[in-house]
Amino acid sequence: MERQDRDLAFMLQYENVAWFDAGEVRILDRRVYPTKVEFVTCKTHQEVTQAIADMVTQSAGPYTAAAMGMALAAHECRDRKAADQLAYLEDASDNISHARPTTVSRMQIITEGCLAAARKAIAEGSDAAKAIVDHTVEANNLRYSKVHRTAKYLVDMFPDDGTVMTQCFGETIVGMLLKECRDRGKRIRLFCPETRPYFQGARLTATVCHDMGFDVTVITDNMPATVMQNEAVDVFTSAADAISLDGYVVNKVGTFQIAIVAKYMGVPYFVTGAPDPGHPTIDTVNIEMRDPEFVLQAMGVRTAAQGVKGYYPSFDITPPHLVSGVVTDTGIYAPYDLHRYFASSDGEFGQRGLNL
Amino acid sequence: MERQDRDLAFMLQYENVAWFDAGEVRILDRRVYPTKVEFVTCKTHQEVTQAIADMVTQSAGPYTAAAMGMALAAHECRDRKAADQLAYLEDASDNISHARPTTVSRMQIITEGCLAAARKAIAEGSDAAKAIVDHTVEANNLRYSKVHRTAKYLVDMFPDDGTVMTQCFGETIVGMLLKECRDRGKRIRLFCPETRPYFQGARLTATVCHDMGFDVTVITDNMPATVMQNEAVDVFTSAADAISLDGYVVNKVGTFQIAIVAKYMGVPYFVTGAPDPGHPTIDTVNIEMRDPEFVLQAMGVRTAAQGVKGYYPSFDITPPHLVSGVVTDTGIYAPYDLHRYFASSDGEFGQRGLNL
Repeated sequence: MERQDRDLAFMLQYENVAWFDAGEVRILDRRVYPTKVEFVTCKTHQEVTQAIADMVTQSAGPYTAAAMGMALAAHECRDRKAADQLAYLEDASDNISHARPTTVSRMQIITEGCLAAARKAIAEGSDAAKAIVDHTVEANNLRYSKVHRTAKYLVDMFPDDGTVMTQCFGETIVGMLLKECRDRGKRIRLFCPETRPYFQGARLTATVCHDMGFDVTVITDNMPATVMQNEAVDVFTSAADAISLDGYVVNKVGTFQIAIVAKYMGVPYFVTGAPDPGHPTIDTVNIEMRDPEFVLQAMGVRTAAQGVKGYYPSFDITPPHLVSGVVTDTGIYAPYDLHRYFASSDGEFGQRGLNL
Repeated sequence: MERQDRDLAFMLQYENVAWFDAGEVRILDRRVYPTKVEFVTCKTHQEVTQAIADMVTQSAGPYTAAAMGMALAAHECRDRKAADQLAYLEDASDNISHARPTTVSRMQIITEGCLAAARKAIAEGSDAAKAIVDHTVEANNLRYSKVHRTAKYLVDMFPDDGTVMTQCFGETIVGMLLKECRDRGKRIRLFCPETRPYFQGARLTATVCHDMGFDVTVITDNMPATVMQNEAVDVFTSAADAISLDGYVVNKVGTFQIAIVAKYMGVPYFVTGAPDPGHPTIDTVNIEMRDPEFVLQAMGVRTAAQGVKGYYPSFDITPPHLVSGVVTDTGIYAPYDLHRYFASSDGEFGQRGLNL
């Protein structure tokens, strides 16, 4: 596993950790992390699709997993004729990008990028799987530099000594904003709602904050209002699964609720990410409904009696009037002014999307 | 165990289930119910105090447990001289009523009622423990009739065919409101936030709703906003641990947050209970901070890494401007108009408080 930017090694233990090697893809099982460090091993690209659908990895993880799934697909068809390899990879791209309905357009950007790298390698007679891995390393390094710029704009909004509330797990942006706070000597403490039903806030975000030396407190998802009222929260921030061009934020269920509470409390809400050209308006977003039984357990232990129903929308939608700013790699935009991002961006980024 | 009102037997399986018999108090362990039906057996009244502090029982449960603790104390000192018995029971009353800081004044009403019953029995030379049990049966029956009247006023606010969101576990009022809906043919479905960290909503409220034949759905505590937006919730309702005379509602942490969301969504919030003369203003309420480690686990399984902190206020405070009405046994009052309750009440109730 080759990485070009050694300065970014600090975050590798928290992120992606999905890699293609020796004919299989290993994905860190974030459903049990940090209590257990276990990997799900996928022998086929369809198993990678299934692992993404099963939430083995979250946040930015699925995008690297998808790329590694494409590398595995290239490995699977390596002995076929060139035209057959391309057809096989196109099918794989379609399969993998549809693993989760909410993220299809962003996934397609990833898998089609891999497809382009493979196409070039196949035309040159070189190893397509290796080409996809190299392409992904390069793309991730580009992503890191963009996320780093995003983190700088976000940290400008933090006081020198203050309190930040997070939501769910922002992957790379969490590590980057903490690194940026450390570099600038900003002493922030963090409150992380636990993020039921998967506990990403308790298990992932809080672990990163603690490992990077910050004062971090986990709260249950019914506490943000009381914490904002009693603990002088300065900023609420989250990443997003999608930001539509009309300024709506699609993110882990609960974001909408905390944004309402933040507005009531006078706490600004900054969402990090990039407007998604795949969603010109919020009407194109399909909110994924997941297995309702999953909310009737916690950490594998049943909570409710038989016969009681569950309800499990993966995401909710926060309207633009609750969003104080959309923090991107080129600055902070009003949620009503997102088209300007594409004019000020280098273009390539607007095409790729930004997976935080 | 004698009960005068057989019509109310339907709710016995859900409530109190703390009883004095043969020199011990058995309390249903609601921390594991409904997965397991287990009882905590207390051999001394101090063990009853500890069980209440340890959250073995919740909602109205602690009040009956406290009364049974007083019966046990009377049993403990039964062979002493009359004056010594009274001194012993006064100490016990003080010990038990301070089990949880938020509910001291309401607990004192219960334990002092028991003390009065014991004093009379001791003067007459009869069994003080039995007198306390008899007094508690009578007091509970009076409470049932008042809660039933409260439920009637609350159910007036429900549509004939609609959706109600609950919070935590309202004990007797939950059973009563469902019975009232059934009697009137109102077809309501219920959404119950699970109520971390103890899951009272998932484990207790949802079980009662299901067992009484209603359509009930458990949601995680980060979902109320999205459910109100997408599932046409008509009413949000909760009980209260205390309602101060200036209209603030002290209840299980999360109530404040749902009340903010309900206001944003245009959903009315009705709190059931009675204004508490022990709290003329909210400033007299002491919010109990519980063991912060408890929020770092779910159903006994650790969720966060070592070194991460927890935070656990038992209750939060909802201000009167978020409360649509305080539903009592004599009608629905504006939260700014609670003194009128005492004028319209039969007096005795205002003295006793109402434990739902």
